Amino acid sequence: MRATYLYGAGDVRVIDVPDPAIQQPTDALVRVVNTCICGSDLHPYHDLPATPDGTSMGHEFIGVVEDVGADVSTLRRGDFVIAPFAWSDGTCEFCREGLQTSCRHGGFWNAAGVGGGQAEAVRVPLADGTLVKVPVAEDSALLPSLLTLSDVYGTGYHAALKGGVRAGSTVTVIGDGAVGLLAVLSARQLGAERIVLMGRHKVRTDLGIEFGATDVVADRGEEGIAKVRDLTGGDGTHVVLEAVGHMPAYEQALGVVRAGGVISRVGVPQYDDAPIGFPSLFGRNITLTGGPAPARAYIERLLPDVLAGNVDPGKVFDQTVDLDGVPEGYQAMDNREALKVLVRP
Amino acid sequence: MRATYLYGAGDVRVIDVPDPAIQQPTDALVRVVNTCICGSDLHPYHDLPATPDGTSMGHEFIGVVEDVGADVSTLRRGDFVIAPFAWSDGTCEFCREGLQTSCRHGGFWNAAGVGGGQAEAVRVPLADGTLVKVPVAEDSALLPSLLTLSDVYGTGYHAALKGGVRAGSTVTVIGDGAVGLLAVLSARQLGAERIVLMGRHKVRTDLGIEFGATDVVADRGEEGIAKVRDLTGGDGTHVVLEAVGHMPAYEQALGVVRAGGVISRVGVPQYDDAPIGFPSLFGRNITLTGGPAPARAYIERLLPDVLAGNVDPGKVFDQTVDLDGVPEGYQAMDNREALKVLVRP
Repeated sequence: MRATYLYGAGDVRVIDVPDPAIQQPTDALVRVVNTCICGSDLHPYHDLPATPDGTSMGHEFIGVVEDVGADVSTLRRGDFVIAPFAWSDGTCEFCREGLQTSCRHGGFWNAAGVGGGQAEAVRVPLADGTLVKVPVAEDSALLPSLLTLSDVYGTGYHAALKGGVRAGSTVTVIGDGAVGLLAVLSARQLGAERIVLMGRHKVRTDLGIEFGATDVVADRGEEGIAKVRDLTGGDGTHVVLEAVGHMPAYEQALGVVRAGGVISRVGVPQYDDAPIGFPSLFGRNITLTGGPAPARAYIERLLPDVLAGNVDPGKVFDQTVDLDGVPEGYQAMDNREALKVLVRP
Repeated sequence: MRATYLYGAGDVRVIDVPDPAIQQPTDALVRVVNTCICGSDLHPYHDLPATPDGTSMGHEFIGVVEDVGADVSTLRRGDFVIAPFAWSDGTCEFCREGLQTSCRHGGFWNAAGVGGGQAEAVRVPLADGTLVKVPVAEDSALLPSLLTLSDVYGTGYHAALKGGVRAGSTVTVIGDGAVGLLAVLSARQLGAERIVLMGRHKVRTDLGIEFGATDVVADRGEEGIAKVRDLTGGDGTHVVLEAVGHMPAYEQALGVVRAGGVISRVGVPQYDDAPIGFPSLFGRNITLTGGPAPARAYIERLLPDVLAGNVDPGKVFDQTVDLDGVPEGYQAMDNREALKVLVRP
């Protein structure tokens, strides 16, 4: 089959690899119907050292079950499924608590002999725990929205939920990428009264307004912080959803969060040490939370509104390619010509 | 009157100063019956640069109202009161939300013309919002426990509450000072199932066991982390209450917190930058919370059990001095000969 591999910074190739097959009795084999490129794929795209063997790519996909191992009991050939960006047994304490990213037996695509989603097919370990069956046809208009449940919608929702967004909350969302925009949507779903979206790309912030942002601040740094404070009587917002991961975004979060408030991070931090002492977090009782979203935990919760057409998170996809177009898709996202690229293998 | 001033590292003096008096119509004048020395007083005791004027000290006191300003409506001469370690109006949004340390009009003792608690009397601004009247006599045996509501008990409770301790939680408390021990008591009150106290002073950890600790780990660093993990099936505890404030305590907290768990800090951080990236907090969805306790918010909640004798937080006091003995009290706490020193002016 054809699959996407990254051989070093900027070097994305779609190559022929052996077809995946059932290896464990708990595996399922899924033919990928839709996959996509993630903002987080751009990190290795920027800085992966050259490697002769390459590394498979992609962690978001929906598709059709082609085969199942002997121990798989909830799925069968022909089922349409959503795969979250981590695989998990669904039975350990962490899974039962809804933290499938810390599953005792789980893992992530593109590691430990499990391929990536930017391919024609994927072997899915622990299929009963990992995959969610959805009653749709392969040609459903809902596929882009269902695909966001693999990662970006669940990640935006995780940010809002961990941030404690509730009816009446004031919220700042930092970042107008797909996760930031779906954090806006999630904050609105959780009842936020005011949602300030910090972003500079008008097409994207317009979509943010459609998703529920009440204000847009295009400035960054001190100017951006001052504008958010102006909008909130000088106090900042109860919750800040940080969907970027770079240090300036964290500093911006510190600047716009209200005393007693919460900074919820879902942008993978591209830094380690950062200010958390008296002047930054402690003195004003700021809480810092977030992490990799247990997307699996949120699929059932978010699915009904997607299936009913009450929300349309799939609007974050503004470009579609086939597998051979994946390298151009990476480039388009890196150049910020595309918000998020959908791939139809 | 006599009052305690710090003139530089190690230089505590009890000196004569003008008697405080009502300045604002919202002030009350309180004669101090009991005050004490705080672990946090030791920070300037260690490193305050020499200053010719000195700085007044003390932020924990209980006493009797001697006079009130014209606008004070809830207190009168003769009332016995608890003063929390911050003064606050009790009416702004932050006070109504229970974050009196961020009161719009509030402040802290020993600043802005307001004296400290290690003195014979204190002018209390915004007395209606700040002081809590308690139905006890000046010679009550409950005074030491009531005095802990000024700061250390409320601070331990804040740690446990912000940490989300609830029935069934597993908790590690880092630090066997007064705040750590009262964090143990608070965690028990909130229903923690298991409370591991990390501390090396047997007399103190014995009091911790009396307050509800189920395990004591005397080791620090990697050895201490390994022991806590051994006690918890390798996972660490749901909640870590960090009552020290130095970097090694934060590193220890990172080591013993369970995936998806919470580190709640109430030890004033003596550092600013610290690890909060993928390997430390983000990857395992760890939440970092805490800050200066709004002690005022907790007094009414904690008072009934103190008045009923169900808890005896005053046991943290193991030495008593008069005002002239305050310099020796600082030294005793600094030498760890005393856990916490009560002062009877």
